Amino acid sequence: MNVTVRGRTRPYRTVSFDAARNAVQLIEQRLLPHEFKIVATRDFRETARAITDMIVRGAGAIGATAAYGLAQGARAFRGRNLGKFSARVETVYQTLQSARPTAVDPVNAMNQVRAAMRVGETVAEQQAIALAAAEEFASEDVRHCEAIGRHGAKLIRNGMRILTHCNAGWLAFVDIGTATAPLYAAQAAGKKFHVFCDETRPRSQGATLTAWELAQQKISHQIIADNAAGHLMQRGEIDLVIVGSDRTLGRTGEVANKIGTYTKAVLAARHGIPFYVAIPLSTIDWDLKRGFDIPIEERSESEVLGAWGVVCHSKFEIRNSKLNQRAYVRVANPTSGARNPGFDVTPSELITGIITPAGLFKPGELWNQRRELGQRLKIPCDNT
Amino acid sequence: MNVTVRGRTRPYRTVSFDAARNAVQLIEQRLLPHEFKIVATRDFRETARAITDMIVRGAGAIGATAAYGLAQGARAFRGRNLGKFSARVETVYQTLQSARPTAVDPVNAMNQVRAAMRVGETVAEQQAIALAAAEEFASEDVRHCEAIGRHGAKLIRNGMRILTHCNAGWLAFVDIGTATAPLYAAQAAGKKFHVFCDETRPRSQGATLTAWELAQQKISHQIIADNAAGHLMQRGEIDLVIVGSDRTLGRTGEVANKIGTYTKAVLAARHGIPFYVAIPLSTIDWDLKRGFDIPIEERSESEVLGAWGVVCHSKFEIRNSKLNQRAYVRVANPTSGARNPGFDVTPSELITGIITPAGLFKPGELWNQRRELGQRLKIPCDNT
Repeated sequence: MNVTVRGRTRPYRTVSFDAARNAVQLIEQRLLPHEFKIVATRDFRETARAITDMIVRGAGAIGATAAYGLAQGARAFRGRNLGKFSARVETVYQTLQSARPTAVDPVNAMNQVRAAMRVGETVAEQQAIALAAAEEFASEDVRHCEAIGRHGAKLIRNGMRILTHCNAGWLAFVDIGTATAPLYAAQAAGKKFHVFCDETRPRSQGATLTAWELAQQKISHQIIADNAAGHLMQRGEIDLVIVGSDRTLGRTGEVANKIGTYTKAVLAARHGIPFYVAIPLSTIDWDLKRGFDIPIEERSESEVLGAWGVVCHSKFEIRNSKLNQRAYVRVANPTSGARNPGFDVTPSELITGIITPAGLFKPGELWNQRRELGQRLKIPCDNT
Repeated sequence: MNVTVRGRTRPYRTVSFDAARNAVQLIEQRLLPHEFKIVATRDFRETARAITDMIVRGAGAIGATAAYGLAQGARAFRGRNLGKFSARVETVYQTLQSARPTAVDPVNAMNQVRAAMRVGETVAEQQAIALAAAEEFASEDVRHCEAIGRHGAKLIRNGMRILTHCNAGWLAFVDIGTATAPLYAAQAAGKKFHVFCDETRPRSQGATLTAWELAQQKISHQIIADNAAGHLMQRGEIDLVIVGSDRTLGRTGEVANKIGTYTKAVLAARHGIPFYVAIPLSTIDWDLKRGFDIPIEERSESEVLGAWGVVCHSKFEIRNSKLNQRAYVRVANPTSGARNPGFDVTPSELITGIITPAGLFKPGELWNQRRELGQRLKIPCDNT
């Protein structure tokens, strides 16, 4: 998507590959929204560290990073000995896999690249195929997000006010994103609309990442406290809700997503406001039988007890904040603790529809469509 | 309520009067929860400034501060000329009224003091009566909160997990508070329970003031993100909700309170969890015919776009934060704006009961009880 740096606007992908320098190029997401910077990792170990250190995050984005990292490691091999080459590729694979051990996307992505490589008969052929397969994985991610945009944009009419929660945007994928894809597609089709970004405490991904994305794409938006959505719905100021998902149960249509998603779904149902979930097919879990069994991560108390931001001493600084002032502030009473569940589960009865690359479905329809939906990608069971 | 300062625990009121030094004593609320300090204002102008500068806030607390301030100004008069004395009292009254012009509590409180003073025939008599009447106003505030505690404590059973939102605690009144009163009364009765404090973004009164109060009273509690309550209710981890109110409509039972209250009421109703509102009688508006007409204040964007806290550079500092590091951090994307409605309105159908000093009522019963409820205090129409 477009990013404006020092007055100059050009398109960027979250993850891309520079074949001439054999480098993976990543948006340094830890600096956003206060600074935009592209970092290039020069070897597969650096690429693995970028995943571990959260320079790159989000299901699609870390999948593509691992795919490129595998190609990068394979291409750095000098020599013609296929046995030695395969051993090196195995080392690269293991290194990248252990960069974020709970994530399934890097594994699926690298398996796809490795499977393609087997066709090559020489080291050079396998190296070339590795890069082509990694590029194909990234392009497929983009095509799927584009398809979500095409299907989801039909829901957006001129003048609509749309609520989003958290960030399932292009920064979490190679490009375009899932929950944001319908917004970008509707904008490209010339539609005018306004987006309310839930702040999304405690980690504030709505106020930081989603708001940054929308500002870059020049989409009209405002950030609201998570507490405010109910009031806006009550006053008739929200027409549509679109969120992403970390895991969607293929059997039941239940949706696990960032904490607070369930609350928004309950409110939307009360007010008769359509509530949609945009997902890549890799998010669908075809095995688990009920949402209650999805493990809910309890995260660090410090996220709830304070906030990360840029220290501002004046109104001028608030709009011209410098990153070197970035700090954690303790907001809460110093002698109190916190509970911090990271995700919640929304039952299917509160979900109007699920926007997938293969089209729009009612939550209850996923299981009947499992052959079609399950075919398009090898379906992993988790996303981080 | 009790406060522990440097290992020593003793009871404090939010507002009190030192007759020997003719000083109003206030908890400096702007320093909480990071530092506890009592400030004494030595004349009525300083007392008015304390109201303006938010050293003291909350309906009952600023009412009592104004009542004490009026007595303070009257007592500082030297001489026996009743005409000059009355002119001085008028100046004091006007100064304190204009300290927070939109608030109705200081006016009601001072009117009560002034009406009592008329009985006195000399300056000295009127001065003595002024102080007695101010003390009576403060004591009445405490007695009403105690009564709320008595009625509300019946709802609390051993082992309950109770959700609160924002702060309608003793810091907003002379002592005890409204939404917190049932908790303190239940604790005094030996009941064991756990409280979840909604953080209450954007101003975080739950994480700062309510959590501080509960910690001082040694009540088991945890802070949660406003997004987390729905998940906890879904998992059966919340048994009861008690909140305060800024304005309750006597005709309809609708409740205006801090933004996010409506959302919690919707969630509680979905899960069959009792939702109670604790109010002083001064909160009841007998005139307004529908909640939709309550004006909802749009507050500063900066509240949503960032957070106030104490800058911490290490885990040690998080628990040992010093106030001189207090700062505002910009959290959100610097080029995005915000919507910030400060309050919302909860319809009566979502409210299980209203806890008043005169007992527990269904929201729809207030109007039938208006003679009894309206008698106990002159009923103002607003609270700040």
